[in-house]
Amino acid sequence: MNIERLIGFTAATLTTVSFVPQVYRSLRSHDTKSISLLMYSVFTAGVALWLLYGLMLHDLPITLANAVTLALALCVLFLKLRHG
Amino acid sequence: MNIERLIGFTAATLTTVSFVPQVYRSLRSHDTKSISLLMYSVFTAGVALWLLYGLMLHDLPITLANAVTLALALCVLFLKLRHG
Repeated sequence: MNIERLIGFTAATLTTVSFVPQVYRSLRSHDTKSISLLMYSVFTAGVALWLLYGLMLHDLPITLANAVTLALALCVLFLKLRHG
Repeated sequence: MNIERLIGFTAATLTTVSFVPQVYRSLRSHDTKSISLLMYSVFTAGVALWLLYGLMLHDLPITLANAVTLALALCVLFLKLRHG
């Protein structure tokens, strides 16, 4: 694996898994007050388009990373809509 | 511009600009209580690596989108560290 590929892979992993602690915190605390609803609405739409992009290009890393990020972002969005 | 490129461009724009309302909300309210510090720490590190990846590949869209996202994520991280 060359250095660019390693950096890209690490970058994708970090930006994807970063949403896990947010989901965990929001699930436990039921507090999403300071989270922006507009941010998660726009972000979720953007990640859905990234997933579509990955599927259209048959690019497995883009598809996989964005499928996981989409699931996590949808969790935060759902919790925000539920708890306000 | 082909359809894949248009979708990729729209996806990058949405995921980047989505952080603007979060920065605005956190700046105005001084409230970042329900935002996960661990999320923004890991996310910021990941976006910094995406920026490095774009620079190494001389890929302007990846570089530009991640430079803007990094600046916005750093704002949220700074506000979280300040307001707790």
